[in-house]
Amino acid sequence: MNALFQQSIASHSSVQANEQHGENQQAISLAVAEEVPVALVYNGISHVVLMATPQHLVELAYGFSLSEGIIEQASQIYQVETEAHPAGISVHIALASACFVRLKQRRRQMNGRTGCGLCGIEALSQINMPLPHVGTTIQMTAEQLAQGFSCLTDQQPINQLSGGCHAAALWQPQDARLQGFEDVGRHNALDKLIGWRLLNNKPPGALLLTSRLSYELIQKAAYAQLPLIAAISAPTGMAVRIAQQAGIQLAVFVREGRVTWI
Amino acid sequence: MNALFQQSIASHSSVQANEQHGENQQAISLAVAEEVPVALVYNGISHVVLMATPQHLVELAYGFSLSEGIIEQASQIYQVETEAHPAGISVHIALASACFVRLKQRRRQMNGRTGCGLCGIEALSQINMPLPHVGTTIQMTAEQLAQGFSCLTDQQPINQLSGGCHAAALWQPQDARLQGFEDVGRHNALDKLIGWRLLNNKPPGALLLTSRLSYELIQKAAYAQLPLIAAISAPTGMAVRIAQQAGIQLAVFVREGRVTWI
Repeated sequence: MNALFQQSIASHSSVQANEQHGENQQAISLAVAEEVPVALVYNGISHVVLMATPQHLVELAYGFSLSEGIIEQASQIYQVETEAHPAGISVHIALASACFVRLKQRRRQMNGRTGCGLCGIEALSQINMPLPHVGTTIQMTAEQLAQGFSCLTDQQPINQLSGGCHAAALWQPQDARLQGFEDVGRHNALDKLIGWRLLNNKPPGALLLTSRLSYELIQKAAYAQLPLIAAISAPTGMAVRIAQQAGIQLAVFVREGRVTWI
Repeated sequence: MNALFQQSIASHSSVQANEQHGENQQAISLAVAEEVPVALVYNGISHVVLMATPQHLVELAYGFSLSEGIIEQASQIYQVETEAHPAGISVHIALASACFVRLKQRRRQMNGRTGCGLCGIEALSQINMPLPHVGTTIQMTAEQLAQGFSCLTDQQPINQLSGGCHAAALWQPQDARLQGFEDVGRHNALDKLIGWRLLNNKPPGALLLTSRLSYELIQKAAYAQLPLIAAISAPTGMAVRIAQQAGIQLAVFVREGRVTWI
């Protein structure tokens, strides 16, 4: 990591605003979360540009690579370097040849998803790729999940300031151990967590998410072999079906003393 | 629109679940919002696949086309037809030749954003495209905005059932007129609203959004010439800067009797 650069792009900033409450108005300095264009560049080829909170970009690179099926293990990435530009940040990922060959093949097949010329039917058929099955299970009580979420607030400093970030955390209640990551994008928060877990070789725990559960989050959790996902909010129908296929248990609407298990 | 098909793909469904509250558990049928892969296909070429609530897809097609700068007026789209596949829905858009030529040119330039081979710097430079300036302004009081949001709940039937949808609405307090659209994706909800407004030639009003404000939403509002955006939640720093460039007023954290004007 280029430390200087990491310091120069902040996770949040402030803007001048007027807060109105009834008849009263006052000028305030409003803290806002920053979103920064982050290009993930594999072996010199730009793969995707994400709008992300510009921190923990090494974890993001490892996590995205694992959760999108580009790598299976950390050793398939040789180096990650960040580079600042006026328009955003490039994250250069040196990827093992076998993974890079596979990525290039898949990009050719997947072009339809981002619309490089396939017809609609072909593009749609790329969505339903088979997912890895999560082999492990994990048992957790409703109380343990509630306890995890109550600890999570302390690990959301940017959100406490700005109200503008999601969080993803790994919760191991047996050791009261919680590790969370924040991002303006919920997919990125999850990828940062997945990358951290891969780099630190952590055992599975409950994945806590502050967001709704849509299908991509389940897909990422399946690639990361996370057997239990708990969310404050609702799942989509597709998220439920994909979780069942992948062998992932869902705990949704974890709030106000309730849990809905699926 | 193919009416049969619209009936066959529902906006929501239900899944079996167990609701736990303390020691009590009961089996319930949980309503969930559906997300469906929707391919937007211009003149036979698939442009993008969105995960969307499968309703108001004609409005989505018009709105996406306007808010992404593909068309400037409704007459540049000759026809929109939906087609069901096992994996999702194709929306076939017959686009005027001049717009299609421009779209193909832009796609060649924009390939870097979705990573078809440009280096990271080039990919990042595509993000900061100049935005249209919103020429009109609109005055609204905090009370009027609060009134609009209090009416919005009635126009969120899928969210009331499932808790899983965002909404975008156009609010004209002088006539107490509110038109809202729901979607699992906040960008899609906005595009459906923009398409409806384009097709029905409605004057500007306040844009009400249930979500946070990130830069793409401001970008879409600029292309749709919407001068005032009100949101329940937080903006990002980039959203604020882009709104100021485009001449769009923001009202954020519109809740609990407060409004923060930017």
